[in-house]
Amino acid sequence: MPYITVEGGPLDAPSKKALIEELTATASAIMHVPAEFFLVTIKELPDENIGIGGKPIDEVKAAYRREQEGAGSR
Amino acid sequence: MPYITVEGGPLDAPSKKALIEELTATASAIMHVPAEFFLVTIKELPDENIGIGGKPIDEVKAAYRREQEGAGSR
Amino acid sequence: MPYITVEGGPLDAPSKKALIEELTATASAIMHVPAEFFLVTIKELPDENIGIGGKPIDEVKAAYRREQEGAGSR
Amino acid sequence: MPYITVEGGPLDAPSKKALIEELTATASAIMHVPAEFFLVTIKELPDENIGIGGKPIDEVKAAYRREQEGAGSR
Amino acid sequence: MPYITVEGGPLDAPSKKALIEELTATASAIMHVPAEFFLVTIKELPDENIGIGGKPIDEVKAAYRREQEGAGSR
Amino acid sequence: MPYITVEGGPLDAPSKKALIEELTATASAIMHVPAEFFLVTIKELPDENIGIGGKPIDEVKAAYRREQEGAGSR
Repeated sequence: MPYITVEGGPLDAPSKKALIEELTATASAIMHVPAEFFLVTIKELPDENIGIGGKPIDEVKAAYRREQEGAGSR
Repeated sequence: MPYITVEGGPLDAPSKKALIEELTATASAIMHVPAEFFLVTIKELPDENIGIGGKPIDEVKAAYRREQEGAGSR
Repeated sequence: MPYITVEGGPLDAPSKKALIEELTATASAIMHVPAEFFLVTIKELPDENIGIGGKPIDEVKAAYRREQEGAGSR
Repeated sequence: MPYITVEGGPLDAPSKKALIEELTATASAIMHVPAEFFLVTIKELPDENIGIGGKPIDEVKAAYRREQEGAGSR
Repeated sequence: MPYITVEGGPLDAPSKKALIEELTATASAIMHVPAEFFLVTIKELPDENIGIGGKPIDEVKAAYRREQEGAGSR
Repeated sequence: MPYITVEGGPLDAPSKKALIEELTATASAIMHVPAEFFLVTIKELPDENIGIGGKPIDEVKAAYRREQEGAGSR
């Protein structure tokens, strides 16, 4: 303890290693708890298992990309 | 936020989409929080990773079916 | 099982009872699992324990209200 | 309810069945709640998704083994 | 890691200490992981925040007691 | 989504605000997901609800302090 868990989409091994290292270092400094006490887990979920605003996240991502492209072309 | 997570057995894509939509709509109305703020995740577990009353769920399901069949034949 | 948990801000008792009843009924119909197997928990957090987009939620709520008022006066 | 969840590395089926049975029995006796009300889930994560003290757990396990071997040879 | 969390109603300090000790010892033996690696947390929820079978748990408890008394008087 | 949750002991408001901001920024850079999609929650638990290595955390903290003092005086 403390225990940090990250839920999100699929990640590669280097990103997981970076999350474990950097989230521990960041939280250890803020919470004044030695890094050795920290536990971190990363829970990867497929897109169809995640929803934001009542819509599956792949729909949300597509709308976000359109918005970015629209903003970029104005 | 709010964050709704559903843990259970394997589900097909249409059921996940329906859970994301309908749980968000139901909770949004009750909690008076706009749907756009809601996050939903669905965590699927194999039967052998779930226990009810100290027994693995496949044993519980089998007993439940026998009970239903027994009630049906009386 | 299945297990539904809702994390969010403080709620009154009637809203909690409604969440327990309606989320169970909604998910039971979608997942084809009898309601009696469902477990629901509600976890209430103070605003300062919740962040969206890197900002504490009370800042996010204030910005959302200004946005709504701005949209209403146009 | 109560709900017990165990997060850790991969496990075989007999170990999962034993965890479901024995954690339920142990907690039921301590909490004075009938075993039939207990829900247990087991969440298995790959090593690269787990970190202790800011390091991925496979590094932690290797250091622990070296420590044990070092202590054994003294 | 492994990480065991227990969600349930309010508990006194001796019960929490016993859960921490005995759940760790039980799981350590089954999972063949040294006890020193285990993290345990206990999350206490008020009754109105817990639902089984779509009903708040205080209603479920009352029905359970009536059932036990009925069975006792037959 | 992604969703980061931090479980630990009691924290003051400035530390919570810093955790929300800095964990979001750190993870956003590593996961290549815009900060606006991140949800962070902080769950504070009393010491008696936390155990490491089968012992309540206040016992673990006391042993850690003695160890540090011992190392300091050698």
